[in-house]
Amino acid sequence: MKYTLDELAKHVSGEVKGDASCEIESVGTLIHATKNQISFLTNPSYRKQLTSSQAGAVIMSASDAEHSSINTIISNNPYAAYAKIAALLSPEEKYTAGIDTNAYVDSNAKISSTASIAAGAVIEAGVVLADFVRIGPGCVLQKNVEIDADTVLTANVTIAKGCKIGKRNLIHPGVVIGADGFGQAMDAGNWIKVPQLGGVVIGDDVEIGANTTIDRGAIEDTIIEDNVKLDNQIQVAHNVIIGAHTAIAGCTAIAGSTKIGKHCRIAGMVGIVGHLEIADNVTVTAKSLVSGSIKKSGVYSAGTPLEPSQQWRKNTIRFKQLDDMAKRLNKLEKQLSSMSQSGE
Amino acid sequence: MKYTLDELAKHVSGEVKGDASCEIESVGTLIHATKNQISFLTNPSYRKQLTSSQAGAVIMSASDAEHSSINTIISNNPYAAYAKIAALLSPEEKYTAGIDTNAYVDSNAKISSTASIAAGAVIEAGVVLADFVRIGPGCVLQKNVEIDADTVLTANVTIAKGCKIGKRNLIHPGVVIGADGFGQAMDAGNWIKVPQLGGVVIGDDVEIGANTTIDRGAIEDTIIEDNVKLDNQIQVAHNVIIGAHTAIAGCTAIAGSTKIGKHCRIAGMVGIVGHLEIADNVTVTAKSLVSGSIKKSGVYSAGTPLEPSQQWRKNTIRFKQLDDMAKRLNKLEKQLSSMSQSGE
Amino acid sequence: MKYTLDELAKHVSGEVKGDASCEIESVGTLIHATKNQISFLTNPSYRKQLTSSQAGAVIMSASDAEHSSINTIISNNPYAAYAKIAALLSPEEKYTAGIDTNAYVDSNAKISSTASIAAGAVIEAGVVLADFVRIGPGCVLQKNVEIDADTVLTANVTIAKGCKIGKRNLIHPGVVIGADGFGQAMDAGNWIKVPQLGGVVIGDDVEIGANTTIDRGAIEDTIIEDNVKLDNQIQVAHNVIIGAHTAIAGCTAIAGSTKIGKHCRIAGMVGIVGHLEIADNVTVTAKSLVSGSIKKSGVYSAGTPLEPSQQWRKNTIRFKQLDDMAKRLNKLEKQLSSMSQSGE
Repeated sequence: MKYTLDELAKHVSGEVKGDASCEIESVGTLIHATKNQISFLTNPSYRKQLTSSQAGAVIMSASDAEHSSINTIISNNPYAAYAKIAALLSPEEKYTAGIDTNAYVDSNAKISSTASIAAGAVIEAGVVLADFVRIGPGCVLQKNVEIDADTVLTANVTIAKGCKIGKRNLIHPGVVIGADGFGQAMDAGNWIKVPQLGGVVIGDDVEIGANTTIDRGAIEDTIIEDNVKLDNQIQVAHNVIIGAHTAIAGCTAIAGSTKIGKHCRIAGMVGIVGHLEIADNVTVTAKSLVSGSIKKSGVYSAGTPLEPSQQWRKNTIRFKQLDDMAKRLNKLEKQLSSMSQSGE
Repeated sequence: MKYTLDELAKHVSGEVKGDASCEIESVGTLIHATKNQISFLTNPSYRKQLTSSQAGAVIMSASDAEHSSINTIISNNPYAAYAKIAALLSPEEKYTAGIDTNAYVDSNAKISSTASIAAGAVIEAGVVLADFVRIGPGCVLQKNVEIDADTVLTANVTIAKGCKIGKRNLIHPGVVIGADGFGQAMDAGNWIKVPQLGGVVIGDDVEIGANTTIDRGAIEDTIIEDNVKLDNQIQVAHNVIIGAHTAIAGCTAIAGSTKIGKHCRIAGMVGIVGHLEIADNVTVTAKSLVSGSIKKSGVYSAGTPLEPSQQWRKNTIRFKQLDDMAKRLNKLEKQLSSMSQSGE
Repeated sequence: MKYTLDELAKHVSGEVKGDASCEIESVGTLIHATKNQISFLTNPSYRKQLTSSQAGAVIMSASDAEHSSINTIISNNPYAAYAKIAALLSPEEKYTAGIDTNAYVDSNAKISSTASIAAGAVIEAGVVLADFVRIGPGCVLQKNVEIDADTVLTANVTIAKGCKIGKRNLIHPGVVIGADGFGQAMDAGNWIKVPQLGGVVIGDDVEIGANTTIDRGAIEDTIIEDNVKLDNQIQVAHNVIIGAHTAIAGCTAIAGSTKIGKHCRIAGMVGIVGHLEIADNVTVTAKSLVSGSIKKSGVYSAGTPLEPSQQWRKNTIRFKQLDDMAKRLNKLEKQLSSMSQSGE
């Protein structure tokens, strides 16, 4: 697979600066790319690597290109252009349609003839797999799961009964969709189970990272809208709704019945408590706890800065005195104000 | 399955207000329930939905019922009453006893004739499954695991050698019980493994959420007592003891040898460091770090509030100056006190 | 298996104090060990258990041994000595080489005759397993995975295509190695996938805890160096490099392209943001967020202390006023200073 720089630029509606006939075979990093490889620049902190890069070409913005004599595809969205070119240069492997002889498929499942099911997968009764769906080794699809066209479950994914997955999803190993939500009622000193009767409904073009869990709803469904992107080890509790085009980084947890808007960007290890509403276009930075609804788009944070532990210990102890300090500060201001008045 | 409101009320020792003969078939939310559905009200923030609800009946407290003309089951514990009624209206599916031809069961395992083992499950030598135990697809039970009556492993659960699980447990996909605890000894610049020789012992009526991990003990056992409820993606390290009736929300982690009391409620994303003792009836709020033992029941918290990032950045920088600020405040108070004395 | 105290002491280059002929069969805790068991003491808070211990012998430091009349192996590294003695007394079970008839091994995989593959494991084309490798039940090794000698995958481990695992690794259930990194580019309102073309390369003597995830690189590889020890539920993003002999506790997450030095000790639930460099010999305490590079070895912390919630609520509200408080403090100091000057 070989393309000229010109062909690649056309593929992403970019503009060539330099040798348009230069041949590109694959992608590489600025530091290690060789003459038949293309790289990209978006993060300004890597700009200095441009000078010494041996890459055949680099995708970058017009303003970055000004300072460089390397072959360039100028793009106003270099990262998206890189994504498209990388996909073109590294096409996915072909797969073979059909059911492996070592897969266990219930006779009451409805499997498209273009779908593929690998060894060790278990498909229960009533499951429906649309065209070109691929089910990897060790996946378990419980009763009546429905998966729409072109969705891929890589390996060891578990989907509980009745959950519905849209088109072109990519679901990574260890993901669990549709396990019971955490519903427990205290009854005379004992927790008793609250039946979890809803399902999970996932839209189109969703990607779900390894070991992420999405619980089924208590009464109605948990909903993941189109083009949501979830990283690894995220926990989505029952009846959460995640709006379209929202991206969430690893290890974030969202408690029950919270509704997250569209086009939000939630960083890693964020906690979001239950029964909240988060507006569209909200960004939350790493490791924050969101304990109230957010009504206005914007960037939000919580937490304290990293310090050498010796200093941190002193400051963290003072945190417990903060309310007291504030009151003493108020008092001092009043005293001083009355002193300066009496002194006038 | 159809019940009159009267029958349902008797099932939960509640009292009917309104039409006792009204027929109920299933459950619904206040917003979406229709005339043959029953709903419930516990969270005061949903009280306003009562006015427009089309539900056939609602389970609620006597005081909430006063303000409503809808058919009601009055209960002093509406959530537990709802749980029982939902279970009655949505009985679990029947399952078939027996070993699927595509399950791999060692000939030295001892399986009750009423137990059920699904396709793709692997049962090693010495495993004992009591009556009505159900092992879902893809589960792995390593040597000598013992599982007591009526426990359900849904799918893709792994239980390492020798662990003991009590009666009526419900264990969700991706759970790992009995993996080695994190025991490493530094030996001349190299970490060497500390053998993890204990097991895991789990009581009765325990529920364990998807992808939760419970490590085996280093010498003695890790212990989960009766009626403990664990949400998804919780990490329980070696030799932890969790007291009966304690409930822990998602993504919380408990480090080694810590002992948690009975009837505790630990919120999500809480961290509890090792070798601590937490008293009975302790509540810890979301995302707190517990770094010392807690000797008194009560509610505990840590963390800082969410803010627009621009303001947060200023405040978080000041956190590093907190000890200095406290000292300067002390000094100002002294100065002012001596000034006012000298001014008298 | 029975050893005299003398034999055990020689095995760890320790020194016997007391009855060197005393026979030891197994290990136990200070509290519960009996006369044929050996225990150890390292944590000073357990020192008081020494007086009443019924252990046949205890491994401890010379200084601890001074205060005790129990049979002792004196060691300057009692924990490592314990690890070696425990391994000697509790040898791992024998396993049988060969491929279980219920494992699915592609005919184009290259499996050493001394390797072992359990029921339900799936081994795809091009996989290479070196001598004495053991693959447990339910493991999935996708195309071209290479695993070097003596490595053990316990059960339900997933390794994606082309990843390379070194010698003597121990990988626990639910681990996912080589799932796609979280690469998404925003393209006219839609996220599009950035192909993840790198792999994962893991050195020798690495242990990886249950349900930990290590993503494949975007262009180059994610790298885990020799003797790294990872606890459960850790998230390692694409292109992270973890230096040799670094140990990381449970539920920590490391974002993309961050490079962690050698001999670091990262506690549990720590978050480390992307594109950072952490020096060698850095310790980070539990639940800290590392948001900048750390250039100097040392101990680092972040976070606020646990408090009764009622007090915490007051203090946490004040956190939002911290910058304002600091400014008011500055102003007061200036006022007071000018007052005392004018008063002179």
